[in-house]
Amino acid sequence: MILCQFDDHRLGLVDGDLVRDVTSVLEGLPSQRYPFPPGDTLITALPTLRAHILAAAGKVAGVPLSRVRLLSPVANPGKVMGAPVNYQKHLEEVASDPGLHHQINAHMQAIHQSGLFLKATSSVVGPSQGILIRHQDRRTDHEVELAVVIGKPVKGVAAKDALGFVAGYCIGLDITVRGPEERSLRKSIDTYTVLGPWIVTADEIRDPSNLNLWITINGELRQKANTRDMILGIPELIEFASSFYTLWPGDVLLSGTPEGVGPIHAGDMLHAHIDRVGDMEVRVGSA
Amino acid sequence: MILCQFDDHRLGLVDGDLVRDVTSVLEGLPSQRYPFPPGDTLITALPTLRAHILAAAGKVAGVPLSRVRLLSPVANPGKVMGAPVNYQKHLEEVASDPGLHHQINAHMQAIHQSGLFLKATSSVVGPSQGILIRHQDRRTDHEVELAVVIGKPVKGVAAKDALGFVAGYCIGLDITVRGPEERSLRKSIDTYTVLGPWIVTADEIRDPSNLNLWITINGELRQKANTRDMILGIPELIEFASSFYTLWPGDVLLSGTPEGVGPIHAGDMLHAHIDRVGDMEVRVGSA
Repeated sequence: MILCQFDDHRLGLVDGDLVRDVTSVLEGLPSQRYPFPPGDTLITALPTLRAHILAAAGKVAGVPLSRVRLLSPVANPGKVMGAPVNYQKHLEEVASDPGLHHQINAHMQAIHQSGLFLKATSSVVGPSQGILIRHQDRRTDHEVELAVVIGKPVKGVAAKDALGFVAGYCIGLDITVRGPEERSLRKSIDTYTVLGPWIVTADEIRDPSNLNLWITINGELRQKANTRDMILGIPELIEFASSFYTLWPGDVLLSGTPEGVGPIHAGDMLHAHIDRVGDMEVRVGSA
Repeated sequence: MILCQFDDHRLGLVDGDLVRDVTSVLEGLPSQRYPFPPGDTLITALPTLRAHILAAAGKVAGVPLSRVRLLSPVANPGKVMGAPVNYQKHLEEVASDPGLHHQINAHMQAIHQSGLFLKATSSVVGPSQGILIRHQDRRTDHEVELAVVIGKPVKGVAAKDALGFVAGYCIGLDITVRGPEERSLRKSIDTYTVLGPWIVTADEIRDPSNLNLWITINGELRQKANTRDMILGIPELIEFASSFYTLWPGDVLLSGTPEGVGPIHAGDMLHAHIDRVGDMEVRVGSA
């Protein structure tokens, strides 16, 4: 099942080049006043909403995807986590900077030592909203990543069981301004986390460890890799994350970017692809 | 006005040693289905709810504060930000580690270079919930801080205008497991952000730059300072933060900890104080 959010937070089932408006199923979600419960309410309810979504989609005509404005497929992520160095060749790219040598004693240590970073949820947008460069005097880089959306609360899970807690996958762009500050600040500027174009539920991607991913800027290939090149796979990342904090439905884990990161500028058009997830185009503007 | 959340997310007006249950005013908040809007709904509505809260409090008897279980005064913070090194003597404490010398060329640079970190909102608890130590084999430290709760959306604000965007203040404990990983991971373990005991609205603390703060562990004084010793004051921290991302109502800014950080263990009782905010006791247990 491929689900998107579009226009004014309508819910859509993606069916080829069409989107079928299934917003009516959201009426099945509980109405809340205060406080709101942890986790993204839609992602929490997805297992029970599934049949209703398919039924609703069967009753409506589709509209072309090209006619809708795609938003983030997760509207209320509780946290966005990122793996800082998780592709072998990106590790080598980083390693070519002598100031970073001490971080690469062993492949496994790279991520276990650096840990995961957080991105502010206020930085999340969908592809139609675009990236707005804020600090024009500094270099801002693109990073394309497979984004994992957690489906159920999970804490202290073993890698072998971890994929059972995944709701689905989308493309994540982890936009980063360069500079001396903490990653969790430099990667948290408004619009610097693009999620999209939709979420593909986990039953459609039983094995996320063999997916090609690439990104072009104005048609020029910048990053190209396969998720099999990850140092820690998705199950191991979830195991590691959940050894520190509880993961909640709608939490997003950006699984790391391959080699080839480079600058973007206002006016650029980004095109990102991940096998079995899809393609998304994102325009870069100025804040 | 001093507001607390207690027991099963009841809203209370604190009046001396009593709490008056004003939960009925929450019925004035809009009921939401999906998605939820950005920001903490209660903090967003606080200016309009104020008169209703005072009216409701006048109609109910108070119960002793000692009889309620205090929760975080912000139930749905969108992000929790922290200032890594913001007290002169804590900077010197850090500076005594030769590996960190390069960070202290100038006082102002310390924070402008390191930036602010993020803590996962899933780590937030109130004082009654306690701290649960997760990695027992590693050292876990206490840090007491003045926590600032943002009241209105703000982006790119100048320091001179920044206090106008503050809803109020509370005590923040920024609990940290030591190790090589990113701060945003090590400080984000469940229960490692304690907010409480309540929120004191900004009209009661017009100037947050001259408040004594301290913490004892099992009655022994560990940290003691005054917010006047901050390197960047609250207005400058808000200016800096809002130059990167939009701050939303309910976002929490931990303004940095003074010298004296040290380990805590299961069984410890923490007592934290900030002038004009209050006192809170927090028990340490095991996860």
